[in-house]
Amino acid sequence: MSTHRLDSIVWRDLSPLMNPSSVAVVGASQRADALPNREPRGNRVIRNLRNFGYPGRIVAINPKYTEVMDCPCYPDIGTIPDPVDCVVLAVPNRHVPDLLESAAAAGTRAAVVFSAGFAEIGAEGKARQARLEALSRERGFLICGPNCYGVLNVFGKAPLFASAIPAGFLAGPVALVSQSGGLSTTIANALMLNRHVGLSYIVSCGNQSGATFEEYFNYLVEDENTRVIAAFVEGFKQPEKLLAVARKAADRNKPLIILKGGRSDVSKRAAATHSGSLAGAAEVFDAAFRQGGIVAVRSLNELIDAASVFSCDSFMKHYNGGRRIGVLSGSGGECTLVSDAAANAGLEVPELTETTKTQLQESVADFGNMNNPLDGTGAMYDDEKIFPRLLQALVDDTNIDVVTINLEANDPRPKELKSGNRFSVAIETAAASSKKPIACFSSIVGGPVDPEILLPLRKAGVPLMEGAECATATIRNLAEYYEFQTNRQASTEKHNAAPAPHAKLPSGILPAQAAFRLFEEFGIPAVPTVLAHNADEAAASAERMAFPVALKIESAEITHKSDVGGVALKLANPSEVRAAYDKILTEVGRRAPAAKIEGVIVQRMASEGIEMILGIKRDSLFGLVVLCGFGGILVELLKDVAVGIPPLSPTRARDMLARLRGFPLLAGVRGRPPADVDALCNAIVGVSRLAVSLGDQLLGVDINPLIVLPKGQGVVAVDALVELQ
Amino acid sequence: MSTHRLDSIVWRDLSPLMNPSSVAVVGASQRADALPNREPRGNRVIRNLRNFGYPGRIVAINPKYTEVMDCPCYPDIGTIPDPVDCVVLAVPNRHVPDLLESAAAAGTRAAVVFSAGFAEIGAEGKARQARLEALSRERGFLICGPNCYGVLNVFGKAPLFASAIPAGFLAGPVALVSQSGGLSTTIANALMLNRHVGLSYIVSCGNQSGATFEEYFNYLVEDENTRVIAAFVEGFKQPEKLLAVARKAADRNKPLIILKGGRSDVSKRAAATHSGSLAGAAEVFDAAFRQGGIVAVRSLNELIDAASVFSCDSFMKHYNGGRRIGVLSGSGGECTLVSDAAANAGLEVPELTETTKTQLQESVADFGNMNNPLDGTGAMYDDEKIFPRLLQALVDDTNIDVVTINLEANDPRPKELKSGNRFSVAIETAAASSKKPIACFSSIVGGPVDPEILLPLRKAGVPLMEGAECATATIRNLAEYYEFQTNRQASTEKHNAAPAPHAKLPSGILPAQAAFRLFEEFGIPAVPTVLAHNADEAAASAERMAFPVALKIESAEITHKSDVGGVALKLANPSEVRAAYDKILTEVGRRAPAAKIEGVIVQRMASEGIEMILGIKRDSLFGLVVLCGFGGILVELLKDVAVGIPPLSPTRARDMLARLRGFPLLAGVRGRPPADVDALCNAIVGVSRLAVSLGDQLLGVDINPLIVLPKGQGVVAVDALVELQ
Repeated sequence: MSTHRLDSIVWRDLSPLMNPSSVAVVGASQRADALPNREPRGNRVIRNLRNFGYPGRIVAINPKYTEVMDCPCYPDIGTIPDPVDCVVLAVPNRHVPDLLESAAAAGTRAAVVFSAGFAEIGAEGKARQARLEALSRERGFLICGPNCYGVLNVFGKAPLFASAIPAGFLAGPVALVSQSGGLSTTIANALMLNRHVGLSYIVSCGNQSGATFEEYFNYLVEDENTRVIAAFVEGFKQPEKLLAVARKAADRNKPLIILKGGRSDVSKRAAATHSGSLAGAAEVFDAAFRQGGIVAVRSLNELIDAASVFSCDSFMKHYNGGRRIGVLSGSGGECTLVSDAAANAGLEVPELTETTKTQLQESVADFGNMNNPLDGTGAMYDDEKIFPRLLQALVDDTNIDVVTINLEANDPRPKELKSGNRFSVAIETAAASSKKPIACFSSIVGGPVDPEILLPLRKAGVPLMEGAECATATIRNLAEYYEFQTNRQASTEKHNAAPAPHAKLPSGILPAQAAFRLFEEFGIPAVPTVLAHNADEAAASAERMAFPVALKIESAEITHKSDVGGVALKLANPSEVRAAYDKILTEVGRRAPAAKIEGVIVQRMASEGIEMILGIKRDSLFGLVVLCGFGGILVELLKDVAVGIPPLSPTRARDMLARLRGFPLLAGVRGRPPADVDALCNAIVGVSRLAVSLGDQLLGVDINPLIVLPKGQGVVAVDALVELQ
Repeated sequence: MSTHRLDSIVWRDLSPLMNPSSVAVVGASQRADALPNREPRGNRVIRNLRNFGYPGRIVAINPKYTEVMDCPCYPDIGTIPDPVDCVVLAVPNRHVPDLLESAAAAGTRAAVVFSAGFAEIGAEGKARQARLEALSRERGFLICGPNCYGVLNVFGKAPLFASAIPAGFLAGPVALVSQSGGLSTTIANALMLNRHVGLSYIVSCGNQSGATFEEYFNYLVEDENTRVIAAFVEGFKQPEKLLAVARKAADRNKPLIILKGGRSDVSKRAAATHSGSLAGAAEVFDAAFRQGGIVAVRSLNELIDAASVFSCDSFMKHYNGGRRIGVLSGSGGECTLVSDAAANAGLEVPELTETTKTQLQESVADFGNMNNPLDGTGAMYDDEKIFPRLLQALVDDTNIDVVTINLEANDPRPKELKSGNRFSVAIETAAASSKKPIACFSSIVGGPVDPEILLPLRKAGVPLMEGAECATATIRNLAEYYEFQTNRQASTEKHNAAPAPHAKLPSGILPAQAAFRLFEEFGIPAVPTVLAHNADEAAASAERMAFPVALKIESAEITHKSDVGGVALKLANPSEVRAAYDKILTEVGRRAPAAKIEGVIVQRMASEGIEMILGIKRDSLFGLVVLCGFGGILVELLKDVAVGIPPLSPTRARDMLARLRGFPLLAGVRGRPPADVDALCNAIVGVSRLAVSLGDQLLGVDINPLIVLPKGQGVVAVDALVELQ
């Protein structure tokens, strides 16, 4: 896969699939006696279309009938008088490829395929899916699935959907795309019933054989009914397009929220089984999401709460980007727990201003501590005037960016024993005049959410979340999204033109001097390095570059030079160099007699600094990615490595470094001077440009160590492995 | 606080408070016209007692009446004809101390105090609470609260409880103790209604002025109706008793599950405000919980799921201690997510045995991949015979310890669209004959849990959890508890007798030689160290102990010796020693002219090894605790320090080390030999014995570095600071 160029992407138009004006259903029958669970899926689709008020034409395909469920029925797709936009296949998998090919031949441009038994089940299924992929690739035929529930277009009233759709479906601004059919309805129901959040689309995309996550995202970014896109993803098929669509979403301020499954080895196995997806390396996805401003959530509940808050207009309108929350609770215990959760999530719970404290002392007589979290105590339950005053105090406090209220809207107790109902009206009143965002959260996650609390609050622009952990993580996610957007807009950083493709280099491992020359082309400094062919040449080179020097055996067949006695360090004068040269050749000759020796390289010893590693690896999905980390135990023990996806700017490079656990080392600890972080960032940018320029011919780069010298003195590559194909 | 001796603890009998045979209620009145919310708390208590069928005597105290709610009413506590066991105070805080003193004088032995306004609100409240604490301490008077909801004894039908109790209260084996009143009912309702878990007690203990968490735990460990204790704790008042009661709970196999709030700085402030608790250092609590086999949970939902599973008898009976889960789901997406969650939680999701795969292929025709997680796919919904076969396959598979089923029991859709109802009967059938534990979990947390699924499953010994994250964390918690119990029972480790109290040492900082002598008393080796008073003495000492040596200035007033030029290392011969001696004295004389100099110590340079730190600190709650970690960036950057609470055995010491992120370093990385872990464990035990022996006179110990030499060569303390009071 070539390193992607964001600007050159051409997107297909998904309208025939996402908003078809006519539909043919294959797999409906006149059998009407079945139980709801046993109803043929084709019939269920027709029923869904009818119940949803689909305004387009519906035809059925079945050679046994001329009419099914009051729709005209034709023997095959080719005999439909006027070709339809989209065909829905509710048939066994073995019939699918032929049917799709005949649909394409008949002028139909899209299909939804429910059946499983494709790439997820081994060789036979893979071959079956390959025919679908060819149709998509070669003829531009759009396919949702296979192995999916299909597409539910809410505003277009077009549910090409395999699952029964309950009455009271809630239309709204959130588009949901889920690789899993089962989770698509589970998430949708939770959004509608537990959060009163409406949907614009549900797409269960299954194996993505003919339309990918990236394409759905692109369509939904352009869809005027959609303001927030939420997705459950196991694997991406066109990762090279992901950052492009993320950028487009960011341009239009449409948050793209993704729960990415398949982080662990076992779950990658599960994902491969389930949808034939390659899950990719978790840390590469994390980097891609961060670079694209994608809101990365870690659980279904975090996905739901993020979709709920990001789609809540007046909340979002009033949000200023800050991380300082004010908390009002009637439970001191919850004050403690939410403080712990806020600290974990990276939010602040600041003290109240003195003004607030004074005002509170006047307005709420005989009240205890004026802290944040603000504990209303039993007093709040006994005197109904207290709660609105405490709430208003938080709304007015200038130390606070977001007001959160601990409200048990999901308390399973009878209404008259529940506090939530008593306080929600006061919250609605406060929200009506508040210029600050207000959200509610319950202590425990679970139990029925009382619609009498939920609906009016949502209408008042107050989203409800469940659990302090999810609530604080969601506000943190919001703050990160806001910061991403702000930095993007504020960025004056000139994007350098993409480097020109590099001339073809010979395959295999580059010799040290050639590797260092390549680095220099991209502005990555290396220690002076000269190849010597005998001891005298080595001594002369050493004198020219100044002592002390190191000698290292040069052979494409030896990667671990010190293991074969091929390295000598800190040589202080010509005679030490000569002796070392001879000793190296003897040792290597003895320990690696078969290796072809090019000579011995002479390198000036680098000054003292911080040893880092910097390199390029090929990710199975994202192609070439840049890695940077500290040498030694931090990388060995903690896998403390930052990942960036080219192209990388200096700002992005700095952001990568800042996420390393060892980052404080660069600022200078234990009496060491601060390191030259600017030069390190430039080296990261250089490596990123090298990756873009070499593209497909590059297999990997490993600079180890890259010495980061004290501030102002730069960085210097000491040893490097460049592998070309 | 003295270092605790577990065996000498005397527990008070809490029966008058927890199971009173007669109760007096102060704060009830004849006003019967109030709304339920405005009902005087005293009346609510009487109503609760009546509704719950309290079999004991109830009297009211109110000078205005002779009868309240059909109870005899007396003007004050002293005039009750027969003293009652317990008095319930539903009165403003200012009346509380006098009333309690008169109750004690009248022969009453216990009280429940609801009102707030004590230690949590500053000086006046602290003074008020001090009178309660004195009553408890000096007269053994038992007090639940203040600032609480009181005690609800379910089997004794004695709800001395401030909050309204809904009908349908579920009796069962879980005792709940919560510092927060609000959370006590929230947790209890979630347990009863969302998990169908019954309760034996609810204790909302508030400020613990006259009965502590430790005392409640002790009572409940002895209570025959209680099999599991779940607690929400902000702070402990008698931490020195916590490990004793934990041991007692472990002896009786009654799991003690604790959610400890107040881990972050803000939440500690919140906890102090709310209940006047000192929250203590999170890492010390973590250590104490681990040593005590206390199940430490991190959220309310994890508390609920732990209480649910640990109290589910047949599940627990069949559990073998393993961490290998089998997962059955109808959603491939959930298969991926639960695999991620399992990896995070530290559970295994092993492959199925070949036997299982073969049997499945025979019994489930045309079925896809036989993996774990086992994805039932749409087939499981279309053919009802498939689900039971898949389930039985997991039950029979010898690679699996716990069978988990992804079941949407909290799906908010109408029953006929819900899959949960269709599969729960099959699960009940399988559970009836299974010798392996079976649990269910939903994908999303939240929404009403369908009682028609929940109740029969619970009856069949199948607990329900919500969310893959909580479910996997709960099984991990279970595995850790099981491992703790198994190791405890299997441990043949001889507990050495506690060391005798040490003779009084002079206060201040111990000189190096004295510190090392003290270490040697406890078996902690130190490098040979001699104090010299002139250059000749130094040179002679160095020759006796063998070169190379180090010189270090000796002065109680200089803690950072190298900062004042007070250290010289790697001295190879007598003349170097003499020169270094003179140079040190000159430098120190110049840079620290006021410091009183004892001389210069001569130390043999330690051999190369791994530099660690080992020490003792004083925790505000647990007293002296032992700390151990790696020197250098791991401790500076990552705070990678293990904590142990004395007394520590070698096994416990090794468990501490195994939790360090740097632990693999001890096994030898990057070509280094493995380190002498046994000797390091012995040094930790020695430091623990030193802490116990010196007790109150010790302020702190800091051995830095302790060099851990290669296996078989021991450890050696090189520098140490011992501070005595």
